[in-house]
Amino acid sequence: MVAYDNKFLSRHLSFYDEFTASQRALFHESLQVQPLVKGNIILNHDKQCQGLVLVKRGQLRAYIVSDGGKEITLYRLLAGDSCVMTASCVLKNINFTINLAAEKDSEIYIVPPLQYSKLMESNPVVNKFTLDKMSSRFSDVMWIMEQVVFSSMAKRIASSLLEYSSLEQSDYISTTHENIARDVGTAREVVSRMLKYFESEGAIELSRGAVLIKSYEKLEEISD
Amino acid sequence: MVAYDNKFLSRHLSFYDEFTASQRALFHESLQVQPLVKGNIILNHDKQCQGLVLVKRGQLRAYIVSDGGKEITLYRLLAGDSCVMTASCVLKNINFTINLAAEKDSEIYIVPPLQYSKLMESNPVVNKFTLDKMSSRFSDVMWIMEQVVFSSMAKRIASSLLEYSSLEQSDYISTTHENIARDVGTAREVVSRMLKYFESEGAIELSRGAVLIKSYEKLEEISD
Repeated sequence: MVAYDNKFLSRHLSFYDEFTASQRALFHESLQVQPLVKGNIILNHDKQCQGLVLVKRGQLRAYIVSDGGKEITLYRLLAGDSCVMTASCVLKNINFTINLAAEKDSEIYIVPPLQYSKLMESNPVVNKFTLDKMSSRFSDVMWIMEQVVFSSMAKRIASSLLEYSSLEQSDYISTTHENIARDVGTAREVVSRMLKYFESEGAIELSRGAVLIKSYEKLEEISD
Repeated sequence: MVAYDNKFLSRHLSFYDEFTASQRALFHESLQVQPLVKGNIILNHDKQCQGLVLVKRGQLRAYIVSDGGKEITLYRLLAGDSCVMTASCVLKNINFTINLAAEKDSEIYIVPPLQYSKLMESNPVVNKFTLDKMSSRFSDVMWIMEQVVFSSMAKRIASSLLEYSSLEQSDYISTTHENIARDVGTAREVVSRMLKYFESEGAIELSRGAVLIKSYEKLEEISD
């Protein structure tokens, strides 16, 4: 049994208020809280299927990795976001590997696979929740795929900068060209070249390990 | 009410034998059979959400299209395959557009969105079926994405030839370079160049509108 925040769980898990007494007991007995340090890996090729994950605080990144080590970011999870792709073993027909890592110091709630599977079987609302969350991740991935397949690199890098800025709620983005390259699935050199071009256009200003956004208008023009 | 094949429905729809009498009545009253001619489009940007689709005979292709008209194939549906992505309006959080077209003369069963939604609400097994089918399509899309993002073009074109050959159950693939280009999301010129290279390697033999596979071993070597 762990210390949990009823209101938080009720707000972010649509099934929480629909439990019977015995389902509620099962849920709370199985609920775990896991603190994560920036860089900690929750899922990778060797460590699959942790169960339902709900982010209590912090920021996680879901991504795929090629055999050659190239990465591409699929989506991010912030406080209140939950992920069912972390429970792939209780979902039929899921046969791909997602990686999930803490991008900031974080804390997550986990409902282990066995218990989550029991809750899904005994309560249709949990099933519905799972379907809705999967739809949401599917949409994220389709969006990324369209970006990757159809968008020019300039658009993708501009979109990535705008996303960082919105995540940090600041014009000042503290990130490396390496990180941006990883997000958009290209080489660092390509990003550096593109950022220099953005700078020459007056959209951003570059400094060591950081990007300052000078004109949102220009960036949005590129990303549109 | 349409003529339907009970055994076919029972074999391919896991929920079919789990219906109550009233659910079964609703299902059969709403069931439609739609004949399709090669090239007919079931879903596109203007025509979304047809409901649950089950292929009675033939072959359908699901794909996405860029603003510039570039296509990429996501998955194919053969006889017995069903698709819930065609019922996006009854699924929460699905906000992408899939195109679906008949690749051969086909016949499909359709359960319209409203009735499908009612069945989902009244029977948890239909919900489970929807989740399983969506997982399966999600896995297809992740596979394609990994191919597109991480695989070299040679691998992707070799894989595409092997898939055509397996679909046709023949060494003789009657398709254009245009079609292959569309499958792998590249230009026709790129495919033509690559096929000439495969021919020079002794893997295939080219003729007008067709590709003959001479060595599966060599193609599999490239695609691996």
